Parts: sequence; C-alpha cells; structure tokens
Amino acid sequence: MSPPRFDILGIGNAIVDILAEVDDRFLAEQGMIKGSMELIDAVRTDALYELMPPAVQTSGGSVANTAAVAAQLGARSAFIGVVADDQFGGVFRHDITASGVHYPTPAASRTQPTARCLIIVTPDGQRTMNTFLGVSSTLSPVHLDAELIADSAISYLEGFLFYVPDSREACLAAARVAHDAGRRVAISLSDFLCVERNLEAFRAMVRDHTDILFANERELAALTGIDDFEAAAEAVRGQVEIAALTRGEHGSVIFRGGERVEVPAEPTTVVDTTGAGDAYAAGFMAGLVAEEPLAICGRWGSRAAAETISRMGARPPEDLRHLRG
Amino acid sequence: MSPPRFDILGIGNAIVDILAEVDDRFLAEQGMIKGSMELIDAVRTDALYELMPPAVQTSGGSVANTAAVAAQLGARSAFIGVVADDQFGGVFRHDITASGVHYPTPAASRTQPTARCLIIVTPDGQRTMNTFLGVSSTLSPVHLDAELIADSAISYLEGFLFYVPDSREACLAAARVAHDAGRRVAISLSDFLCVERNLEAFRAMVRDHTDILFANERELAALTGIDDFEAAAEAVRGQVEIAALTRGEHGSVIFRGGERVEVPAEPTTVVDTTGAGDAYAAGFMAGLVAEEPLAICGRWGSRAAAETISRMGARPPEDLRHLRG
Repeated sequence: MSPPRFDILGIGNAIVDILAEVDDRFLAEQGMIKGSMELIDAVRTDALYELMPPAVQTSGGSVANTAAVAAQLGARSAFIGVVADDQFGGVFRHDITASGVHYPTPAASRTQPTARCLIIVTPDGQRTMNTFLGVSSTLSPVHLDAELIADSAISYLEGFLFYVPDSREACLAAARVAHDAGRRVAISLSDFLCVERNLEAFRAMVRDHTDILFANERELAALTGIDDFEAAAEAVRGQVEIAALTRGEHGSVIFRGGERVEVPAEPTTVVDTTGAGDAYAAGFMAGLVAEEPLAICGRWGSRAAAETISRMGARPPEDLRHLRG
Repeated sequence: MSPPRFDILGIGNAIVDILAEVDDRFLAEQGMIKGSMELIDAVRTDALYELMPPAVQTSGGSVANTAAVAAQLGARSAFIGVVADDQFGGVFRHDITASGVHYPTPAASRTQPTARCLIIVTPDGQRTMNTFLGVSSTLSPVHLDAELIADSAISYLEGFLFYVPDSREACLAAARVAHDAGRRVAISLSDFLCVERNLEAFRAMVRDHTDILFANERELAALTGIDDFEAAAEAVRGQVEIAALTRGEHGSVIFRGGERVEVPAEPTTVVDTTGAGDAYAAGFMAGLVAEEPLAICGRWGSRAAAETISRMGARPPEDLRHLRG
C-alpha cells in the first residue's frame, strides 16, 4: 500500500452558515429544540430568515468544517460536497480552498441554490440549526472519486448525509472503496435527532463500516438506546477501532481496544459552540495521522474546539499549527 | 412644516462586506494604501478574492451602516441604494430591514451583481477596502423618492457616490429636494482618496449644499488642502451649520457657529475599524434629532464607534439604545 496523498477526505454537505444571536424565547416561539439540527424547506427558510436579526455569513457544513480546520492544523485535507454556481457557492469554495483543502467537486448548475444553515446562537453560546440543503442534497455516489478515496488515509463521513437516501448511499459506497484500498473510515453521528430518525442505518454503518466513531453524549445515547454514558460507551467500543466520545465542557473519552483515555476540555470563553465537534474531530484526526498517542490526539481536538468556541462561526480563520504539541 | 416621518434617510451604496484578517505584507504586495478605499472591477475582484484567506460576510456600505446603527440606537431610519436580485442582495436587504430601517428600493434584475467590498483587516485593526460596485453603481436620481426625502429630518449622503456621475447627480438632486422641504442635508466625505479625485465636486457640495459635515482628519486635509487640523477646521466651519470632525483615537471636534466641543474617544479594544466613522455619524445624528447638545451627540457617536470597533464587521448586531444617555 503506497502512502496516501491526503490525510483526511471529508464527504459531507457544503453549506454557508447564517448566524445570528437571539434569546431563548425565540427558540420557544419557533418550536426549536436547542442544540439540534432540523432540515427545513425553502419556504420555511425564507420565513425564518425574515424573523432573524442581522446576521453574519460564514462557510459551514460539519465535515467541511473539519476538513478546513484539519488543513489549518497542517493535515493534508480534501473535501467532496456539492454547491451551486451562485454567490454562496463561491463563498464556500473560496473559504475551503483558502484553508488549504483540495476541493474538486464542480459547482452544479443553478437548478437549486447552495445550501444554507440558519443558526440561532443563544446567550449561553449554544447553537440551534435550521438547514435548507438545496443543491447539497444531490450528493450521490456519482460525486465520489474512487481514486481520491483510495488516496486518503481517512475518509470522514457526516451523519447528516443519512437524511437523504442518495447521500447515504454515497457514504456506503465511499466506505467500501476506502476499505478495499486498505484505508480507514470515520463518521460523525452529527446530531441526536438525525440518529433517532435513521437509527437502523446508523447502527449498521457503525457496526459494519466504521473504524473511527465521533459522537457526543446525546448522539451516543440515541445510537445505543442507553442513557448512561459508561454503559453506552461499553456497548459501542467493541464495534469500532476507535471511539472518540465528546462530553462538552467535560472533555472527551477515547476508546481503542482495551485502552481508555480521558481528555479534559480546554478552558475558554464560550461565544458560539457552532463547529465545536467538527473542530474536535479535525484535531483528533490530525493527531491520528501524525501517529500521536490518543491523549495527544484528544488534546489537539480539545484545543481546536476551544479555539472555535471562542468566536462566532465554525472555522477559526487563522493558521492553527500552534495548537499541535 | 409637519414633523418628519423619518429622522435619517441614508442614500448610498448597498454593499456586502467580505472581511479577512491579513498581515501588512499582503497590503504591500497588492500595492494597497492602508486605510483607503479603491474601486476595482470584476476581474480584479475575483483575482484579489482568490488571494484572500477564509473570510466573513456581513452587510456593509458606509451610509447603509449608519442607517442601520442609527435605527439600533432608536432613530427612525430609511435607506435608498441598489442591490441585485441575488443572494448577497438578499443578505443586504435582510440585515438592514432587520435592523429596523425602511428600505424601499426594489432589487434590480440580475444584469450586474450586488456590490461587494473586499476588506483587508490588518493586525492593528485598520481596514483597507476594495469595492466592486456592481449594480450599486446604477444609483441615479430615478431611485430617489421625493416624498421620502421631504419626510426625513436629515438626508445623509455618502462621498463614495461622487465616483459615479449618475450617483453624484442623485446626491445633488436629493439635496435640492431636502432643502426645498426645509430639511437638512448631511454628508460624509467617506475617504481621502475619493475626496482628492473628485475635489471640486466635493468643495461645491460642502460649500453650497451641506448642513452637517462628517470628515476625518485625512479627508478634511484633502478637502481643504490644509494639513494642519486646526487651520483646516477653521477653513471649513463657516461653510456648514455643523462640522463633526473625527480624529480616531483622539476623539472628535464639533463646530456649530461659534461653538466648539471636544469629545474623547470611548476606550475599547480595537479589533476591526471597519464602520467606525459610519457608527460615529449614526450616534451623532441620533443625538441631533433627539435635540441633545453637541457634547451628547458626540458622546453617542463615540460610543457607537467603540462598539463597532470592538468586533469584526461594520454593524454591531444588537439593540444599541443602552448607548444613549
């Protein structure tokens, strides 16, 4: 097996985030579940946007964020995901490319717009997401590049893709190609609602196709049906090579075979948690491909997450290589 | 004369800002003059954008910023300026409307895109701007609404409009309508390069059509041809009812008839000076229409500017009425 050209290939939704600070009452009025992600249609998107205060636009998308932050940490990253040939698509392409990520997916013609995610940031720094997938929902196996997958040490998939049958099919196809090439497959469970609503598919994916699992406590509980963290971790650890389980301010717990490593969260001021988990995965995998021990992988993850949490938006704009070590 | 329906009607370019943090070397390599604004064409815009690191998109436009911040300070604001029917146009319209600004200008069909400004923010917090005007450059007297102008206590114009003959004509037409209705005309000189390049037009505008003048030191020097601040202020104060002259960290000096008021800058941490002058004008005019004394007008201006400087982007997103008083 020749050395891979890329460390991390992300496959996920290509989204521009529209972030606004709103108080908790807004969530209640809109019937939103704090901390979750809901898919919304174009009409609801326009209606919700109109109710939002002035906002900030930044590139987003869970796995895209991970690819960007991993590149800024010095990992060789690539990304597959679909934007339209419109202004938001231009923003997404510029930002991920400027982060140093190889992004070969061509823009789709303008039958549907680039995905956007209306993100409500409450005073506690929690983010609640409402995503209009637009053209991103057309991601299917045809967008995959078998050579690129085979040439990447880790193919990293987004649980959110499981909402769309063609995109879920792309996950399975990518996993097959990666494993056939002797590479690893990582997945983030993305969101507890997403796991609950696609439970059997997630269980099969984790059990049969996943080497590295990223999940937070609520997602883990949804996957396993077990509320107790330790019991849930026990249920899942045997199914994957590595499980990196995040616990917000309590840091993360990492399992590999008989190994168990606890990593504290890095202290920071919480402004906006958007992208915290994405940045953790970036730091963790950047450490993994650098063949660092799990404790270091977790530390890089915690540091990248802390950097992300301390500002609005999912991607710290600057070089992050100082977070290594 | 009946009481006006609006306090401040801004007439200016409708722009989305694309902000990125870059070191000073980038400015030198690109031959940019720090702190200035240059108009660039579509080709240069694409080329420059490609060189920029990951960025943040927020609504901008000098006078539009003022209208938004004034509304957040509690003033009744309106804005005239042209966006296209595209995604950035949607962002601009959403944000200014969500700030509480009446914005009646219809979107233009998509022959040209919405204006965007590539803003380079250096580590000292200074911003250097490169603007592609796009459809905003079509602003002409036809976009004006005489009834709206006559119904606004102050029509506030943007010096940047003087780069485009039709837009400059709109300034003069608006000033005529405002004065015929017994209202006031305010103008920001916007940028020293803009003043130097359109010097006679600016001199005539200030001398013949301006009640309230906003300028920083470099703009004042460009207008008067006098480098010494006091001498330059002396030269201009007799031409207008009020001259509010800003001096960055040294605060502002305000002249009205025989009156001279010095206002200190509010202490703050400088992150990004984009919009500082716009926010000052907003605070100042919000005070003026509330019939506050000049010292209070200046203080509201300083506070609004400090709020703006302490974060990326030209418009603090939240309600700002706590800055009054």
